[in-house]
Amino acid sequence: MLNKNQKPVILAEQVQSSLANLEPLSRKVFLSLKPPSPQDNRADVDQVRHTLERSYGLVSVPLALMPRIPGICRSANWQITATLGDTGQGWTLIDIEPGDTTQEHFGLAIDIGTTTVVVYLINLCDGTVLRHAADYNDQIVMGEDILTRIRHAAELDGLARLQKAVVDTLNRLIKRLYPLTSKTSKITAAAIGANTTMIHLLLDLDPASICRAPYTPVVNRPGIIPAREIGLEIHPSAPVYCLPSIGSYLGGDVIGGILVSGMHQQSDISLFVDIGTNGEIVLGNEEWLVACAGAAGPALEGGVTTYGMRAEPGAVDHVSIDPKTGWVDYSTVGNLPARGICGSGLVDTLAELFLNGFINRSARFQNGQQEFVVVPAHKTASGEDIVISQVDINNFMATKGAVNAATDLLMENVGCAWQEISHFYAAGAFGQYLPIESAVTIGLYPDLPRSAIVRLGNSSGEAARQVLLSRTKRLEAEGIAGKVTYFELNANSAFMDKFSGSKFLPHTDLDRYPSVKRRLQTRA
Amino acid sequence: MLNKNQKPVILAEQVQSSLANLEPLSRKVFLSLKPPSPQDNRADVDQVRHTLERSYGLVSVPLALMPRIPGICRSANWQITATLGDTGQGWTLIDIEPGDTTQEHFGLAIDIGTTTVVVYLINLCDGTVLRHAADYNDQIVMGEDILTRIRHAAELDGLARLQKAVVDTLNRLIKRLYPLTSKTSKITAAAIGANTTMIHLLLDLDPASICRAPYTPVVNRPGIIPAREIGLEIHPSAPVYCLPSIGSYLGGDVIGGILVSGMHQQSDISLFVDIGTNGEIVLGNEEWLVACAGAAGPALEGGVTTYGMRAEPGAVDHVSIDPKTGWVDYSTVGNLPARGICGSGLVDTLAELFLNGFINRSARFQNGQQEFVVVPAHKTASGEDIVISQVDINNFMATKGAVNAATDLLMENVGCAWQEISHFYAAGAFGQYLPIESAVTIGLYPDLPRSAIVRLGNSSGEAARQVLLSRTKRLEAEGIAGKVTYFELNANSAFMDKFSGSKFLPHTDLDRYPSVKRRLQTRA
Repeated sequence: MLNKNQKPVILAEQVQSSLANLEPLSRKVFLSLKPPSPQDNRADVDQVRHTLERSYGLVSVPLALMPRIPGICRSANWQITATLGDTGQGWTLIDIEPGDTTQEHFGLAIDIGTTTVVVYLINLCDGTVLRHAADYNDQIVMGEDILTRIRHAAELDGLARLQKAVVDTLNRLIKRLYPLTSKTSKITAAAIGANTTMIHLLLDLDPASICRAPYTPVVNRPGIIPAREIGLEIHPSAPVYCLPSIGSYLGGDVIGGILVSGMHQQSDISLFVDIGTNGEIVLGNEEWLVACAGAAGPALEGGVTTYGMRAEPGAVDHVSIDPKTGWVDYSTVGNLPARGICGSGLVDTLAELFLNGFINRSARFQNGQQEFVVVPAHKTASGEDIVISQVDINNFMATKGAVNAATDLLMENVGCAWQEISHFYAAGAFGQYLPIESAVTIGLYPDLPRSAIVRLGNSSGEAARQVLLSRTKRLEAEGIAGKVTYFELNANSAFMDKFSGSKFLPHTDLDRYPSVKRRLQTRA
Repeated sequence: MLNKNQKPVILAEQVQSSLANLEPLSRKVFLSLKPPSPQDNRADVDQVRHTLERSYGLVSVPLALMPRIPGICRSANWQITATLGDTGQGWTLIDIEPGDTTQEHFGLAIDIGTTTVVVYLINLCDGTVLRHAADYNDQIVMGEDILTRIRHAAELDGLARLQKAVVDTLNRLIKRLYPLTSKTSKITAAAIGANTTMIHLLLDLDPASICRAPYTPVVNRPGIIPAREIGLEIHPSAPVYCLPSIGSYLGGDVIGGILVSGMHQQSDISLFVDIGTNGEIVLGNEEWLVACAGAAGPALEGGVTTYGMRAEPGAVDHVSIDPKTGWVDYSTVGNLPARGICGSGLVDTLAELFLNGFINRSARFQNGQQEFVVVPAHKTASGEDIVISQVDINNFMATKGAVNAATDLLMENVGCAWQEISHFYAAGAFGQYLPIESAVTIGLYPDLPRSAIVRLGNSSGEAARQVLLSRTKRLEAEGIAGKVTYFELNANSAFMDKFSGSKFLPHTDLDRYPSVKRRLQTRA
């Protein structure tokens, strides 16, 4: 389980900035109707619909709701609250309640990662995040990465098992948010950011073609789907919107990241990088967007090192080494005895090892050393040393090298120089807790002016919140999906050349990291 | 069971005249798609949707259909047929089939009467009626008239029983049409004309408020409902459109009648009368429409006389009496031995009895006669005389008197004189088989130039066919529903006065029936 206290920075900030006009996926409307009389004996359902249509255009009323309307209108003295859901073509009535319940209006912003699932409970009256809950994706037992899951889906009942696993994960998280709403049926809308495979598994769609040429998913734009058809335990008719994908390897999570960064509306060129279980890199501006993607492995989610763990209580999350004494100073999440090292701790450790000469530019320990003790046995929860080994470092360098190689290749291909990059947007875990200086030091982040480095946090979740709250943002997301050009890395033999030459700290070309070069010179 | 050979005249005629542009409630579209390639690796669902959206605007694809799309596209070599259903807000994909099946495109036009249900199988490619089937409404065992049914609906499970009865009737009739289509799922749209109570019972909506002041139905405009929600055994996602009602006593059948007559688009004033189990009268033109309604009883469906029966084999359907010999000449449906008298036979008999002086202007037998033998015992199927009694005549006169009284009252109220009536439209059984001269003779039809008397036949069924085939007609029907003013007969004490004075042949005021007056003088 993730630390429940961790609040992604970006979610709160954006409320004020980008969404002045709330136009959420579901609406609550208080109606003060008139009792029928000989002068106005319109049918009850028609009176409700006519009243709504004055503000909302064509509104459909499903047959299932019609029988309830006369009773609720009469028992509530014709003071009722209607909930409308966006159908993508207009509005449909999804609920009717006695009295004025417009202040009880909730939605979910959902980020389904291959490894981690996060659900944010959103107050649809003002767009704020009321609470969030996160957990590992239950699908993990059926495979840690996307390819294994796709293979599992081909087994007997495999797809159904995977679908159930992610829906169970979501419903478990929804129940945790439950106490804030009187009923989960008060949650009347949801938006989802996820990669293409996760969306297929959620929707019970065969993902086989995603990893088979010519890599055509079943669907990239599922549109709006009623919650009951997915099995989400919120209002059964709640509209659920999935951020559109671009293709097999560029999902709604990436479209969401671009949306949140705003790079698609800037005249200057930006670079967007999201490294989770998969890595995605997007380059572009308001005129063009080029992207590439590939498997990355859970490098920053605690998965590549022996003592790696998530940013849970007891995780070493900050490390510094005294250049003179070599003493290690560290902190842990919750100030508990150390249990392992999370992504930010790992990045700090590697940067400090490098700056202090424990490892060289090839990321190899010097002087025959095989490992480095970050926390000695007598201070750990288990009573064992917590160490970083050469193998741990090599695993990390493979991920980092792949990201550097892909970025360089994409930029070369587009003919874009580093000097032209106005902003670097880091998304996902990769853009949430990593210490900026250390990330630059080991070359995970580029050596740009620090104000140009923007950590977006969980941009997939934040994008889900934005499209949940704003029709304008939904259209913007669809627009981005129609604009991105996919650059195929696997078909590119130059990638392996780049990759082989990329396993240096901070980068093959040290001159591209002037601030790191200066610090190395200073320390030396 | 009705005579299956009877083909309503109007349905065939209208095909050529009024529906030049077919725009049916469901559409079939043949798509010749391209197999995905590295150059175009759009998702399969998206390619289908994009292709449809070029001609149909926003098209939604339900989740339930998505899994079938990749398989069908590939097995059919990307040559597929999509079926779209009108949602009232746009189009939704309701089916996808391999190859070109655009010529197998069927819909239903349905007329649900309190007594009789008719289902027409329509070829949606050209709008023609392929076949029709009719039967009594199974609800009859739970009450013959609307008020009894509404009372039955209030009993435990009464509403559910009534709903099941009408749906069973419809599904039985649909199965009779079945052999013409390879599967009932090939029927992908339906439109229904019915009175307000019939629509409530079909949709499982409580009809209690229909007969309780202020007489507000649950719904007048149910809009478009998927077949599965009603239980109709056609394609489960087929859009089902119900003609809108105006209120408790003016249903979609009457709106349909007005639509078919075209009186709402004429500058001259017309009179529309439909007499089935209920009677409805509409007066007006393109600028205004005023209507009244009331229970009529099955006067013309065989229900008011001892030997009354429907126009089934063996029914006496035409009668004449030789003025000199007094001999009766008659014919029966199917030329079978006589079993009873249907509506047209009754109207003929009464007219002949009147013209030949067997009954006087008060519709009373003369010279102490108590009954008239229409068919003597040795010529009937049962071996009993088939007779018309004074009681039979009195029952009929009550219905006729009520219609005359209501018509006169409505016209007086509007301030409209008979000279101003350009057309008389007779709908339902009342406007299908009745012999015009006899109907004028006994005052059922007004004594207008015969070219001004238009028998619309089953205008409710024909209206259903028109709105099934034409969005323009649907909008026209909605427009009519918004324009009709309801004139309340029951609240009007003048009605009883009129009614008491109306039981004359052909009418209290003989001068209003100059052609009848002439014939009486001739015979005398």
